[in-house]
Amino acid sequence: MNQYEARIGRVCEKMRAAGLNQLMVTDPLGIYYLTGVFVEPFERFWAFLVRTDGGHVLFANKLFSLGETGFRTEIHTDDDDVAEKVAPHIAEGVLGVDKNMAARFLLPIMAACPEAKAVLGSDCVDSVRACKDEAEKALMRRASEINDECIEKLAAYIHDGATEKECADYLAGLYAEYGCEGVAFDPIVSFGANASDPHHMPDDTVVKEGDCIVVDIGCKKDRYCSDMTRTYFWKKADPKHAELYGIVREANEKAEAMVRAGVRLCDIDAAARGHIAAAGYGEYFTHRLGHFIGMEDHEKGDVSAVNTALTETDMVFSIEPGIYLPGEFGARVEDLVIVTDDGCEILNRVSKELRVLGN
Amino acid sequence: MNQYEARIGRVCEKMRAAGLNQLMVTDPLGIYYLTGVFVEPFERFWAFLVRTDGGHVLFANKLFSLGETGFRTEIHTDDDDVAEKVAPHIAEGVLGVDKNMAARFLLPIMAACPEAKAVLGSDCVDSVRACKDEAEKALMRRASEINDECIEKLAAYIHDGATEKECADYLAGLYAEYGCEGVAFDPIVSFGANASDPHHMPDDTVVKEGDCIVVDIGCKKDRYCSDMTRTYFWKKADPKHAELYGIVREANEKAEAMVRAGVRLCDIDAAARGHIAAAGYGEYFTHRLGHFIGMEDHEKGDVSAVNTALTETDMVFSIEPGIYLPGEFGARVEDLVIVTDDGCEILNRVSKELRVLGN
Repeated sequence: MNQYEARIGRVCEKMRAAGLNQLMVTDPLGIYYLTGVFVEPFERFWAFLVRTDGGHVLFANKLFSLGETGFRTEIHTDDDDVAEKVAPHIAEGVLGVDKNMAARFLLPIMAACPEAKAVLGSDCVDSVRACKDEAEKALMRRASEINDECIEKLAAYIHDGATEKECADYLAGLYAEYGCEGVAFDPIVSFGANASDPHHMPDDTVVKEGDCIVVDIGCKKDRYCSDMTRTYFWKKADPKHAELYGIVREANEKAEAMVRAGVRLCDIDAAARGHIAAAGYGEYFTHRLGHFIGMEDHEKGDVSAVNTALTETDMVFSIEPGIYLPGEFGARVEDLVIVTDDGCEILNRVSKELRVLGN
Repeated sequence: MNQYEARIGRVCEKMRAAGLNQLMVTDPLGIYYLTGVFVEPFERFWAFLVRTDGGHVLFANKLFSLGETGFRTEIHTDDDDVAEKVAPHIAEGVLGVDKNMAARFLLPIMAACPEAKAVLGSDCVDSVRACKDEAEKALMRRASEINDECIEKLAAYIHDGATEKECADYLAGLYAEYGCEGVAFDPIVSFGANASDPHHMPDDTVVKEGDCIVVDIGCKKDRYCSDMTRTYFWKKADPKHAELYGIVREANEKAEAMVRAGVRLCDIDAAARGHIAAAGYGEYFTHRLGHFIGMEDHEKGDVSAVNTALTETDMVFSIEPGIYLPGEFGARVEDLVIVTDDGCEILNRVSKELRVLGN
C-alpha cells in the first residue's frame, strides 16, 4: 500500500465513524494529500470524491493537463455543466462536502442530486491530516531545520540602522537560497514598542538600544511549513523586560514539558497561561497558545482554553506564549512540536537563553 | 449620495431584475466595493447582506475591530453559532448568495433558514463591478500609467547576460518604488522559444541575439490592477518573426478599433482572430482575446468566441491577441481599454512599433 492509499484508508475509517459513504474533497491541498496530484484550479472545478466502497473519482477540467493519476478521472470542459458531470457519481443518502466548497459548485450539485443531502464532512480529512505520517514528519523536520539556520543568520545580520523591513527582506532572500518555495506566512520582525502588537507588520522602524526584537518566521519547503518565534534584545536588556522574557520562556517550556499523547489541548494552554498569570501578567497574554500546522501554516485545530480534544501521537502544533505591554514591549517564544506516545519532539533547536545582540 | 450608496443602488436594481430581495455578499472585495470596508477574514465569517428594502446588514467577527462602518453591524464571536446570528435577518423566499460562499457557512445558514431558498446571486454585484465609476476609472488609469513607465524602464534595463528572473525581480522593485501594493499577477518575461508557452514563468534563461522578449506585467496600486503585454526583440529580429509580430499588432489594433458600447464581445474577439486566421496563423492563437479587470486581475466577464453579451460604457477589459509557434517563438500585444459610448479609451500609451532592444 502506498502512502496515498494509506491516507485514503484512514479517511474512509473516519467517514464510516461519521456515517458517510461519500465525501467530496475540493480543497486543492486536501486532494494533493490524498492523491499526490496538485492543481491550482482558480475558478474551475477540481474535486476528489472519496467513496468508502473504493470507487473514488477525480473531477478535472480538461485544461489541467493532469497526466496519469492512477485514479478514475472524469474530465469536463469549460462548456460543460459540472453538476451534470458529477451527478451520476453521487449515491442517494448523505454527501459529505468540503468546508471550503464554493457555492457556485455546491448549489448546482445539490440541485442535480436531490436524493443526496449535503453535510459538512471535511473533518474526516482534517483530523487525518492533523496526525502526520513518516514522510510528512521528515518534511516538517527539514522545514524547521532551515528555519533554525535562517534565524541564526538573521540574528547575525541585524546591524545599527537596520529597519524591520530590511530584516524581513533579508530573510526572504535566505529562504530562497535554501530552495524554499517562499515564506509560510508574512514574516514578523518587530522592534521595541512595535512588538506590543503581536501581528505588527515590518515597517521602516530602525532598531535602537534597549529594544526587544520579536522575530516570528517560517518557510515553506517541499510544501510543508515551519513557524518559530524568538525574542532578542538590542545592545542591552532593560531588567524588567528581561524578567518578562524569562516568564514567557518558562511558560513555553512548562507547556512543552506537558505535551504527550492523551492530554487535553486546553490543559497545555492552561500550563502556559497559568504560569504567566501567576507572575501577574495574565491579561497581557492575549492569544491562544498554539495552532496546528502542516502544508498550511494554520490548519484545523488549536491549543486554546476552549479546545478539550485530546492530543494524539504525530499531531504537530505550535507552542507560543507571549506577553504584550501596550506601547512598550512584547515577547514571544515559539516552537513546533510533534506529539509522541510519551512526550514530544521539539522541532526547533535554537537556544532560548536570553540573547542581547549587537555587542 | 456617496459612491457606496450609488453602488449599492445599482446592485439593488440588478437584484430586482433577477427577482431577489436579499443577497449575501461574502467576497471581501465585493464587500469593500459596496461599503468601503476591507477585511481579510481568513477562516472567519464576514458578509454583507444587501436588501432591496434598504435594511442592509454587515456580519463581522469581534476580532475584526472595524470601527464605525455606517452600516448596521451584527457582531459575533468565535464561540457563537454564525447561522443563528444570521437567521433572524433572512426573510422568507429566495436568498441570493455569493458564488464563492464557503460550504461551512452556506450549509448551516440554509439549515437555519428553511423558508429561504438559496440561489447563486453574485452576478448582481459582478455585473455592476464590470462597469467602473469615476473613482475607479481614475485608479485604473493611474495603475496603467505606472505600468507604462515601468515597462519602459524594464526595456532599458535588459542587458547582455540578463535572465528572465532578473528582469521579473527588477520589475517588482520598480513597482515598490512607485508605492504599489505589489504585482497584480506573477509577471511574465519570456525569451525566445520560452515565449511559445503563453504562461511560461520566468526562469534562468539568458537573453540571446534574435530572441523575442514577451513582457506581460501588471501592478496593483490602491487596490486596482494594471495588465499590459509588449513583445520586443533582442539585437535583431528574424524577418519571419517580425512579420508575425506585425500581424499580432494589427490584430490588437483592429479589435481596439471595434470597441464601443453596444458591440457583442464575441465580435471583438472575432475581429482579432479573423485577422490572424486570414494570415494563416489561426491555430496558433490559442486563448481568448481578453478578460475583464478591476480590483482583481481576472474579473467576471471575458472577450471570447462564446460571449455574446454586449459591451457597456465603462466596462474595462484587456485586448491581447497572440501567436505562439511551439518551440520557436511567441508574440502578444495587450492593452487595457475602457469602453465609451462611441469608442474606447486605451489605458496603455506605450508604443507598439516593432522595437529591437540592445543596440
